[in-house]
Amino acid sequence: MNKINLSQKLSLFSEYWSPKIVGELNDSHIKLAKLKGEFDWHHHDNEDELFMVVKGQLTIKFRDKDVILGEGELIVIPKGVDHLPVAAEEVHVMLIEPKGTLNTGNVVTEKTKEVLERI
Amino acid sequence: MNKINLSQKLSLFSEYWSPKIVGELNDSHIKLAKLKGEFDWHHHDNEDELFMVVKGQLTIKFRDKDVILGEGELIVIPKGVDHLPVAAEEVHVMLIEPKGTLNTGNVVTEKTKEVLERI
Repeated sequence: MNKINLSQKLSLFSEYWSPKIVGELNDSHIKLAKLKGEFDWHHHDNEDELFMVVKGQLTIKFRDKDVILGEGELIVIPKGVDHLPVAAEEVHVMLIEPKGTLNTGNVVTEKTKEVLERI
Repeated sequence: MNKINLSQKLSLFSEYWSPKIVGELNDSHIKLAKLKGEFDWHHHDNEDELFMVVKGQLTIKFRDKDVILGEGELIVIPKGVDHLPVAAEEVHVMLIEPKGTLNTGNVVTEKTKEVLERI
């Protein structure tokens, strides 16, 4: 039962699009990730997903609009909703989503990560 | 499906120990609260609880140690673990915990909030 310092944990890795598990909360995992560039369109059939920006700026494209998140901002993407994270520059994010949630949701791409490292 | 700016939401209220619901994430609520002073010892029989400090500094006392959380730090308090939040000065926190979690857990005190406002 130790605290988690988000910046310290984020200093432990550098690769993009590779979420790391830093904690558990009921049936969910708390994850940290560094993102740069464009992900793949996907949705999660059964899981809402929280994105919170720790550092930088993240655009989340939806089919009908874009949402730009800065530091100290978060969004919950409801289950079933197509979305595409895009980061023009490196961005650091915290994700909270049910254990077992696949990063690319309903699709499998070169960015799919079946097994996540714990840090 | 709009973003949540934590600082903006926190500007909407001033009372202490009165968490506000700002979002839903699967079976959980995302809450914001302002704390100052000492809460009451309690635990949650069935719910893990996430505390993240948005502004200021929060001490969480456990039966065997204290944990001090600053900005950008979080802790997950596992179900069943006695804890006591203490804030010498005003602190702003985000909480994530299952819907229906009572703020004072297994005890009812003058700080118990049965119904939470949504902002």
